[in-house]
Amino acid sequence: MRIGFIGLGHMGNPMVRNLLKHKHTLKVYDVVPDLVRKMVDQGGKAAESIADTAKDVDVVITMLPSSPHVRSVYMGPSGLIASAPPGTLLIDSSTIDPLTAREVEMDTRAKNCPMVDAPVSGGVGGAEAGTLTFMVGGEKADYEAARPILECMGKNIVHCGGPGNGQVAKICNNMMLAIEMIATSEGMTLAAKLGMDPKVFAGIVNTSSGRCWSSDTYNPYPGVLDGVPASRGYSGGFGSDLMLKDLTLVTDAAKSARHPVLLGAIAQQVYQKHSADGNGGKDFSSVILQYMTGSPPTRG
Amino acid sequence: MRIGFIGLGHMGNPMVRNLLKHKHTLKVYDVVPDLVRKMVDQGGKAAESIADTAKDVDVVITMLPSSPHVRSVYMGPSGLIASAPPGTLLIDSSTIDPLTAREVEMDTRAKNCPMVDAPVSGGVGGAEAGTLTFMVGGEKADYEAARPILECMGKNIVHCGGPGNGQVAKICNNMMLAIEMIATSEGMTLAAKLGMDPKVFAGIVNTSSGRCWSSDTYNPYPGVLDGVPASRGYSGGFGSDLMLKDLTLVTDAAKSARHPVLLGAIAQQVYQKHSADGNGGKDFSSVILQYMTGSPPTRG
Amino acid sequence: MRIGFIGLGHMGNPMVRNLLKHKHTLKVYDVVPDLVRKMVDQGGKAAESIADTAKDVDVVITMLPSSPHVRSVYMGPSGLIASAPPGTLLIDSSTIDPLTAREVEMDTRAKNCPMVDAPVSGGVGGAEAGTLTFMVGGEKADYEAARPILECMGKNIVHCGGPGNGQVAKICNNMMLAIEMIATSEGMTLAAKLGMDPKVFAGIVNTSSGRCWSSDTYNPYPGVLDGVPASRGYSGGFGSDLMLKDLTLVTDAAKSARHPVLLGAIAQQVYQKHSADGNGGKDFSSVILQYMTGSPPTRG
Amino acid sequence: MRIGFIGLGHMGNPMVRNLLKHKHTLKVYDVVPDLVRKMVDQGGKAAESIADTAKDVDVVITMLPSSPHVRSVYMGPSGLIASAPPGTLLIDSSTIDPLTAREVEMDTRAKNCPMVDAPVSGGVGGAEAGTLTFMVGGEKADYEAARPILECMGKNIVHCGGPGNGQVAKICNNMMLAIEMIATSEGMTLAAKLGMDPKVFAGIVNTSSGRCWSSDTYNPYPGVLDGVPASRGYSGGFGSDLMLKDLTLVTDAAKSARHPVLLGAIAQQVYQKHSADGNGGKDFSSVILQYMTGSPPTRG
Repeated sequence: MRIGFIGLGHMGNPMVRNLLKHKHTLKVYDVVPDLVRKMVDQGGKAAESIADTAKDVDVVITMLPSSPHVRSVYMGPSGLIASAPPGTLLIDSSTIDPLTAREVEMDTRAKNCPMVDAPVSGGVGGAEAGTLTFMVGGEKADYEAARPILECMGKNIVHCGGPGNGQVAKICNNMMLAIEMIATSEGMTLAAKLGMDPKVFAGIVNTSSGRCWSSDTYNPYPGVLDGVPASRGYSGGFGSDLMLKDLTLVTDAAKSARHPVLLGAIAQQVYQKHSADGNGGKDFSSVILQYMTGSPPTRG
Repeated sequence: MRIGFIGLGHMGNPMVRNLLKHKHTLKVYDVVPDLVRKMVDQGGKAAESIADTAKDVDVVITMLPSSPHVRSVYMGPSGLIASAPPGTLLIDSSTIDPLTAREVEMDTRAKNCPMVDAPVSGGVGGAEAGTLTFMVGGEKADYEAARPILECMGKNIVHCGGPGNGQVAKICNNMMLAIEMIATSEGMTLAAKLGMDPKVFAGIVNTSSGRCWSSDTYNPYPGVLDGVPASRGYSGGFGSDLMLKDLTLVTDAAKSARHPVLLGAIAQQVYQKHSADGNGGKDFSSVILQYMTGSPPTRG
Repeated sequence: MRIGFIGLGHMGNPMVRNLLKHKHTLKVYDVVPDLVRKMVDQGGKAAESIADTAKDVDVVITMLPSSPHVRSVYMGPSGLIASAPPGTLLIDSSTIDPLTAREVEMDTRAKNCPMVDAPVSGGVGGAEAGTLTFMVGGEKADYEAARPILECMGKNIVHCGGPGNGQVAKICNNMMLAIEMIATSEGMTLAAKLGMDPKVFAGIVNTSSGRCWSSDTYNPYPGVLDGVPASRGYSGGFGSDLMLKDLTLVTDAAKSARHPVLLGAIAQQVYQKHSADGNGGKDFSSVILQYMTGSPPTRG
Repeated sequence: MRIGFIGLGHMGNPMVRNLLKHKHTLKVYDVVPDLVRKMVDQGGKAAESIADTAKDVDVVITMLPSSPHVRSVYMGPSGLIASAPPGTLLIDSSTIDPLTAREVEMDTRAKNCPMVDAPVSGGVGGAEAGTLTFMVGGEKADYEAARPILECMGKNIVHCGGPGNGQVAKICNNMMLAIEMIATSEGMTLAAKLGMDPKVFAGIVNTSSGRCWSSDTYNPYPGVLDGVPASRGYSGGFGSDLMLKDLTLVTDAAKSARHPVLLGAIAQQVYQKHSADGNGGKDFSSVILQYMTGSPPTRG
């Protein structure tokens, strides 16, 4: 298949490489020429503009940092909607707010270009290994059309319902994740402060009603699990600033919908403080450091 | 074995019946004569007082509603510590604050009575089925001594470390549980408000990083899972007021330890409001009702 | 002076009338023709477009509902910046986010049009009585130029520093106000629940360290003060949805600045819930209803 | 008058000295002999026990650190209730929870000893200057009987209603104070971060609807007001740990009453974190340090 790809950063780069491995023909574009050059070295063809990326291809995939970027790449005067021939399948893998996703999709549909929103989870590691999860929002037929392409880059390709629902699934899941990570941080540090061995406590929680992914798979307490960021100084993983971005998206979406998300808003604040304290680059499980205060534990 | 049992309420009653089934000899006591009579009908022998309960037995088990009750039953002038012969094994299955548990244990040890704290999870259903989980704090040897008896009433008998750690495990787990239940309520209702099918959203979360016991085993959104309180009007299960009690215990313990538990304290407040709104008797997953406001969802 | 005025809603209408009373010449514009007609009846002259409003006047004042409106009225292809002759003084009295205010001001400056942001407090009542407070951000000289005009509509014309600082003052003040209103609601209802007469409690707080404008001037507890919304069913005053708008602005501004505002974010959530419960049209002191639960007070 | 006084610490010492200045006869007691000796040097007479303090006096005043102390001094086997002759007026100036205050008062009344709870505000400075505020709960007649004595130590002697209401007024006021101090901290630091001069912002807030005692009399931002702790490194004043104690009391009282106090509980957590970070000894306005993060302000 002939695929255009816009956005060649940390995620876009390995995603393109996986598409090339599957023998697809790639036209690539980014505002940073260096990023384009790297992809050309791997076998992609340089596009000269957004409009050019959409010429003579069957599909265009975008991987962009935020809603305004998506809006401008799709809806700008020389953007995809203005340039892509009717019938071109558009796939946006950026994580953005669902309302923007739905607006863009309505415009693409008016131009007879089918579109799906397909944000990912799995991070740079998943992008490189080709094991990303894609949460796809859009018409069933468009989801089916996108699936074989997405399967070149990911392992789970989940249909979440109509347009925008990929974004809804992504940001609502991540809101729960952030809250649960903080809950786990509070539970682990309090148990330790009250005199309990953190590993023993984790063992009990993980077979009980308090268990969650943050406690059994990604525990933030150093030394409880092997091979997680907590056991290597919170390097690697999913950065606190990325989590902060998703929390900002989800609380903004809740504001638009006038829906209360008390713990979500507090999680956003906790990560905002954590970032302001200089921890934005550390894995998001490092939020437990906010709870590791000086005083020694009581006996146990 | 000869066992004394104090506290014959909703939990104590089926626990005693399970001990009787295992051919133990039971002496039973409660301040409410009716509760004693019921147990005598089942084959227990009525004790005349706390002190009498501790006479001619190998073990005394207590199942009481709160710290002041435990304090008075153990430390009162005619309490267990004053009455039990040295060597009597004391097992407290009440859920109380860990500091009181440790104080009581120090006093019993001074009298050469080994003691373990062994709060349970599993509720009345688990008590009747003999499938409770016991979280046991105490010396390893005392845990081993208590285990065969606890196995008559439960399925998982977990050693949590030294005295008081059974309580620590119980209340820290339940703090995490309450926060995660609210997180799930916020995530599920926001996803629905933003136009997503709740079942589809739950399916995605439960194979993703937002998964937790509250989302995959006890989902609070009506109709997502069968056989949970959410699918029968929040009847049965673990009452909101019981969760409120545990949250009050854990935030008090955190205050004593001067340890911050921001989300824990907010969860306590959310359940306090939920209870003040008249929902104390409903299952604790009914907290989702706090997030089910009038306005209809946006499209999806 | 010759003044152009854009935005003739609940606030703009009485502001224009006060300018007319002071013998200024007014050219008025709004997207709703009816609103323009009303002002023409009062002696204003109808402008035909945004561009036309800026022709042959010394000053243009704008009073618009939100940032996107301001952006479009000023920066649109036929907007004020494109149309106003160099030297025209531009005054924006809308409440918007400070970052947008600063962006717009930079663009106007590049066109040699001095600009100040001048959001107001005092509501429709203050607009009609000509007693608004204007919080003005901009160069000192521009503030001095705007002052005589603003004095036709308001009583306090406060210079808050450079461009955008009028907005900063407004939204940070209102964030404090919202938190203090909730604090007062919690204090008043808890004191009452614990058995104290609300009037007596208010009297003590108001001569003590807990006093604030929400307790001594705008008390939310019914019957404590005369002539406030709380004593007439929360009608009139400053609507909860308007407070919610300001809280959304301020928490968004804090997000952009990566500054933690924990209580501010929670206040935003409390008002979001209050609005979702159907109270958006009631005065913002009605938030106390969130704390008036069924159970009767204990003795006192 | 003949007065017994129990509790001779930082507050009790200067209170006794002021009573001596007014020519009252004092019998003094404390568990720390040194504290007694100091008072004897000033003209007091040493009592030998709690019971002895209540002998041959008209009034007994107590100034104790917490509820359990009050409970034991009054209700212990050789406590005041057991020892004081009928008709002795009992005044408790400790800050404790209202429920304990009411329990104690019921017991004293049963012994025909009138009692008032009379917690103070004003700190050690106010105690030394004799300018304390007393918030008095109790029967009107008992309040009138206590007033002349309290006027030797304070300036404002306020009747708050029936027994326990002095405590209610004190802790509910202090809850509002803590929330407002944090609100002021968030508002001041955000305004500064968004580029505004803190003094200018404080000036605007203090003549506007965001004003409160924490902003206009005790501003936490360094350099905004003279003579407050913020302008001398947060030394002196009212310690964060004392505020934490009052917040713990008030949130516990709210728990007993099943009344939600969301911001109160969060304020308790914020001070708990502040204390755990090592700031317990600093004035409570130092909580603003939690909001002073590294990144520099944006322009303004």
